[in-house]
Amino acid sequence: MTDTVHLSLEEVHALARDALRRLGCSEPQAGAIADTVTAAERDECQSHGLFRIPFYARVIATGRPDPRAEPEISELAPAVARVDGRMGFAPLALQRGAAPLAERARSQGIAALSVNNVFHIAALWPEVERLAEQGLVAFAFTGAINYVAPAGGTRPLFGTNPMAFAWPRENGPPVVFDQASSVSARGEIQIRRRDGVSLPAGWAVGPDGAPTTDPDIALKGAQLPFGGHKGSAIAMMVELLAGALIGDLFSYEAGERDADGTGAPQGGELMIAIDPARCTAGGEATASLGHAEQLFSRILEQEGTRLPSQRRVDARRRTLTAGVEVPRSLVERIGALG
Amino acid sequence: MTDTVHLSLEEVHALARDALRRLGCSEPQAGAIADTVTAAERDECQSHGLFRIPFYARVIATGRPDPRAEPEISELAPAVARVDGRMGFAPLALQRGAAPLAERARSQGIAALSVNNVFHIAALWPEVERLAEQGLVAFAFTGAINYVAPAGGTRPLFGTNPMAFAWPRENGPPVVFDQASSVSARGEIQIRRRDGVSLPAGWAVGPDGAPTTDPDIALKGAQLPFGGHKGSAIAMMVELLAGALIGDLFSYEAGERDADGTGAPQGGELMIAIDPARCTAGGEATASLGHAEQLFSRILEQEGTRLPSQRRVDARRRTLTAGVEVPRSLVERIGALG
Repeated sequence: MTDTVHLSLEEVHALARDALRRLGCSEPQAGAIADTVTAAERDECQSHGLFRIPFYARVIATGRPDPRAEPEISELAPAVARVDGRMGFAPLALQRGAAPLAERARSQGIAALSVNNVFHIAALWPEVERLAEQGLVAFAFTGAINYVAPAGGTRPLFGTNPMAFAWPRENGPPVVFDQASSVSARGEIQIRRRDGVSLPAGWAVGPDGAPTTDPDIALKGAQLPFGGHKGSAIAMMVELLAGALIGDLFSYEAGERDADGTGAPQGGELMIAIDPARCTAGGEATASLGHAEQLFSRILEQEGTRLPSQRRVDARRRTLTAGVEVPRSLVERIGALG
Repeated sequence: MTDTVHLSLEEVHALARDALRRLGCSEPQAGAIADTVTAAERDECQSHGLFRIPFYARVIATGRPDPRAEPEISELAPAVARVDGRMGFAPLALQRGAAPLAERARSQGIAALSVNNVFHIAALWPEVERLAEQGLVAFAFTGAINYVAPAGGTRPLFGTNPMAFAWPRENGPPVVFDQASSVSARGEIQIRRRDGVSLPAGWAVGPDGAPTTDPDIALKGAQLPFGGHKGSAIAMMVELLAGALIGDLFSYEAGERDADGTGAPQGGELMIAIDPARCTAGGEATASLGHAEQLFSRILEQEGTRLPSQRRVDARRRTLTAGVEVPRSLVERIGALG
């Protein structure tokens, strides 16, 4: 049994925020990161929760990010806003960009947000969920560090390149997915290395290009895209959208800049938001959202299925009142930072 | 050896168009379908080429589509146009919607096109490629007939739900992918049934929900999404975008309406177009497109890789001058239609 500490979500937030402040983050940067960390703990996604705070500490220690950066908003076109994160972390840039994106989606029907010059080590679901909570359909795309070989190849080129999507619901939290375009998250391989467990076949190749189930060899080689050439095509699309399209870095360029090997990519993120009230001849979101509920019911009436975000939403119901258990060693480590 | 007839691409177009005219299509409907059929033959995608004309004939014979429909364009929001296909086939609606979509993408930065009330039995790459040839980044999403089980489930609910993406290039045809969210196209299973060949594991389950490699049992059961729950999430997203969001049918509703079992879905399609010149602080597409070329070079420098549309583009180089070989039996069958 791991020795744990019981924390309310308010305590999780304060623990994260205070550590980030001691590490040199401005109040807004620290607050926005603490929000994403708390949302992850609330939803029992521990790998994006407090576990990330020592990671932020390592990245700040390289001197590359500006932990006091103030993002700058501009308009690139009537339906395209931009947030220049000015080398700060992604969460604050995304918080600041949410309103300009949502306003444009409502007035123009669809809108995009180019997020530039951020360091990205958080999940994408918080930003698409935030938009969907306001009744908008939302997409997010971001690169990473080049860990993944293109289909047919054997050397790392693409990032794990997540793509997230959120659909609003009138009587509950949005339906959200946030999935890497690699078979597995990098962390899943790292955990297996730590635990001395082999990888399932098909996850990775070694530096020699041969398939491997050895986590250590896999981490030196390349991860593989999910679903073969189809996942590889999606990974390429994410590179183009979050890199070339918005004038930011590809994953291999982020890798070149990460000389310290922190694993924290500098790069961009593209978000798209659509207002369901502006996409039908009737012009009412209610009918569209009601129709979607019929699809969700049809999915759930089959045994063995679930909606993509269901596990997170179920966790949230428990933790909002009951709080969470966090390993004591992690709480102590965070308390000693800065 | 199959007995074949040599046809120029002009002859392919005339063969298709004339047959569709005899089957009752208006000149614009026949011309637009013939354009997509010819593009498929040109790119050696035979399954979407002349092979489809007898399929169109069967669908027209049901009396459900209106082969003389005139699509109607309207504006739903500054960045959202709509084409009501009025129960005609998709190609004409998509041709007519291309200019309103491109204009809005240029003026607003990003735009969407809701395509409603069409019968869809063509590939999606022609419409995204058309936009990318004009320098725009383009997406397309459409449902199908419910053939695919959601991840964890065993009964057909989703369509094979393709998603297409195109990226413009300054010195050549766009990079394009158009991929089903099922492991395989339905046609690949049908061809294996015809040829008495087993399916690879993981393609399908039978009506009892058990995995099967028997094409006949698979066609009575359900196809599986590619990449497990990730492909299933994408299939769900496509249902929501091409169904609920734009006020059109889900694949299972298209299936209910296809009482004759033609396999031709009535439904909608969502397109999104983005102008790369409006997505960067610099405001120049040239830099973005040049940057993308560096990524493509990095992909291709790895042995064993290719760009998604490379095979089609290579075929095109040959067939534009050399024409194509078409099975004589197919040419005769099309000649006898109507």
